[in-house]
Amino acid sequence: MVIVGGGFGGLACARALAGAPVEVLLLDRNDHHEFTPLLYQVATALLTASDIAYPFRAAFRSAPNIRFQRALAEGVDLVGRTVLTSGGRRVDYDYLVLACGSEDEHFGSAALEANTLGIKTLAAAQRLREHILACLEEAAGAEDDLERRRWLSFVVIGGGPTGVEFTGALVELLALVLGRDYRELEPGLARVTLVEGGERLLPSFPARLGRYAARVLMRRGVEVLTGTLVETADAEGVYLADGRQLPARTTVWSAGVRARSLRGLPDQARRRAARMAVDECLRLAGAERVFAIGDLAAARPDGEELPMLSAPAMQEGRYVARAILADLAGRRTARFRYRDKGTMAVVGRGSAVASIHGLQLTGWIGWVAWLAVHIYYLVGFRNRAAVLVSWGWNYLRRDRPIRMITAKDSDPLVERLLGHG
Amino acid sequence: MVIVGGGFGGLACARALAGAPVEVLLLDRNDHHEFTPLLYQVATALLTASDIAYPFRAAFRSAPNIRFQRALAEGVDLVGRTVLTSGGRRVDYDYLVLACGSEDEHFGSAALEANTLGIKTLAAAQRLREHILACLEEAAGAEDDLERRRWLSFVVIGGGPTGVEFTGALVELLALVLGRDYRELEPGLARVTLVEGGERLLPSFPARLGRYAARVLMRRGVEVLTGTLVETADAEGVYLADGRQLPARTTVWSAGVRARSLRGLPDQARRRAARMAVDECLRLAGAERVFAIGDLAAARPDGEELPMLSAPAMQEGRYVARAILADLAGRRTARFRYRDKGTMAVVGRGSAVASIHGLQLTGWIGWVAWLAVHIYYLVGFRNRAAVLVSWGWNYLRRDRPIRMITAKDSDPLVERLLGHG
Repeated sequence: MVIVGGGFGGLACARALAGAPVEVLLLDRNDHHEFTPLLYQVATALLTASDIAYPFRAAFRSAPNIRFQRALAEGVDLVGRTVLTSGGRRVDYDYLVLACGSEDEHFGSAALEANTLGIKTLAAAQRLREHILACLEEAAGAEDDLERRRWLSFVVIGGGPTGVEFTGALVELLALVLGRDYRELEPGLARVTLVEGGERLLPSFPARLGRYAARVLMRRGVEVLTGTLVETADAEGVYLADGRQLPARTTVWSAGVRARSLRGLPDQARRRAARMAVDECLRLAGAERVFAIGDLAAARPDGEELPMLSAPAMQEGRYVARAILADLAGRRTARFRYRDKGTMAVVGRGSAVASIHGLQLTGWIGWVAWLAVHIYYLVGFRNRAAVLVSWGWNYLRRDRPIRMITAKDSDPLVERLLGHG
Repeated sequence: MVIVGGGFGGLACARALAGAPVEVLLLDRNDHHEFTPLLYQVATALLTASDIAYPFRAAFRSAPNIRFQRALAEGVDLVGRTVLTSGGRRVDYDYLVLACGSEDEHFGSAALEANTLGIKTLAAAQRLREHILACLEEAAGAEDDLERRRWLSFVVIGGGPTGVEFTGALVELLALVLGRDYRELEPGLARVTLVEGGERLLPSFPARLGRYAARVLMRRGVEVLTGTLVETADAEGVYLADGRQLPARTTVWSAGVRARSLRGLPDQARRRAARMAVDECLRLAGAERVFAIGDLAAARPDGEELPMLSAPAMQEGRYVARAILADLAGRRTARFRYRDKGTMAVVGRGSAVASIHGLQLTGWIGWVAWLAVHIYYLVGFRNRAAVLVSWGWNYLRRDRPIRMITAKDSDPLVERLLGHG
């Protein structure tokens, strides 16, 4: 059997099949799993890439029935039962698990795509970190306060969990380094704006928690604009639908994602955000022994579509592993059921929001809960230890250790944003 | 006063001036100091970039008289007493310390420059690591053994300490992952060749140690070719002066460096490897209050030119700091004297060579000495702790944790070597 994608869903599925009487081939464009919930900490110089990346081959070292191949799946032939990969190769399958996730969606705006920095992959997060650090250096070398303010203007588009967590970590980074490591720069010169189209932050959370997050961010100096639509963006900043302009040298996109495309998948089965329709057993309609899970799948176990989060993806991955083993043994499987374990988002040092079965946590209690859950889920011992060390260090020293720019000067967007292009 | 370059020499000079009654501006193209002796461990997936990089601004947080500016020095006007930086800016100086180091020298061969991967900077080491890992993945996906052998062919040009240390770490990496994480690949498929033009490895060490290093590497499967000159290279491999070809998908250059160029420095003062002639007080001939240190300077305190190593650079940096403070106080300074603390190189797990005042260490004793010295010199507590954790982990688990490819596919050389170009 073949699993396409080693995110939370694909990895959980493969792990659940370790040692089972089935040959598994996992395909991923990267050679490592990315612990995406902590990408915003890579983007803000708190964690380094290897802290949240785990090599697939190391993960399956002791599972001889699971093979890995680094390849980008470009299409699938549901009749010929074949996956087509980037090298022009064909990989046959008997069972297929599609778990290729989602990517940034700019709602058709080429300008927004070209002028904003994403935070959805490790490569994007590293690029964002290096751009932020380069802006700080440019500000430090600037001639006057006007120029300094330009370099220190940041706009985050999208007030969901990713936007809120990144914004919180960004103001914390700025508060830590401005006036200290950057003695030339007064903290008051920085301007961070979080723009959300909906009426409040964290639309997927209870209203009280969204309001709490906005209060915490505003207290820390963030300008929070809710009910505000973005029209377009260029290298100078963001243009709002109401005609206002927000100058920015750094604009971060966290306002929308869509399921990845894959040639050969039936377009009529695409639902909201391009997710694929699946039946109650997560099978793709009209295809035999093909499952879709995670961000790619519009799973509706209880009538309501599951959010694009790690917890549903992992539960779906493990369910599909069980379903395939049952099918091989000639047994039937009960439909997929989702156990909601709640959602959480960190707003900054010592404050987070969590919504767990009607229980709403904020502040320190929420933060400690967030910490515990994320450490528990970090894949692999080494990563967990390294993250603990980093966090402990940061907490004690109020430091941001991963402060280095190593990118080659060949990224056209970054060049343009820095005014070199 | 201005220091150009924050390598071992420039950083030691700046640190020695912390708290002194003088305003110091340190210029570097990077925002961080790179602990270059361990770059080969970054290139072989043992350490991550942040383990050996230390932000300048963090280093000088508690030294208000030392400022940092991220800028590439492009030239110097010794008459106008100005440094010209990449942004077209001019930085005036009263005292100037030139510490801009060295870069790879391919002896005029454009083919060698275009087809070999360097290991002299952090960016180069990361690029080399990602290329090695990509070759392993390509080999794992190859159709037959012939193809697999091609991807697993490595040539290292230059048998000095860098070439020996990298080669030792590379065969160790291959021995650890082939047949284990890469079950598809038998260890016997890999071929690592170390080419040295001189009669033995480690020409700067006593003859016995060079022979010991060759023996250890050969026992670990490296083909060691001494007395062998390289003619040229292309994407298929290396061509030797005697007509032989060494097929290779990865060719590493560690055969030569030269002092960096800087417009405005007198060409007639360039010595071997383009190092600048300096007097017994490390002053540049014909310029007032201008010093040159480290790889840039051909310092000859005892008649013999000091090697391009961290120890002379640091001693020179500290000496120049003292000389400038003495000059400001109207005192004269004695000439620069070098205290030779010996040299060492690690050949692999549990074996290193060290030459200290006539004492020649090999094997475990040399390795423990090497470990102690390198940990002691790693700049900054966090880095030291992280490196200790990484090393300890690697030692216990025989693992290579930093196994991830995040490079964007826009590096022409790597694309060509991978056959995508």
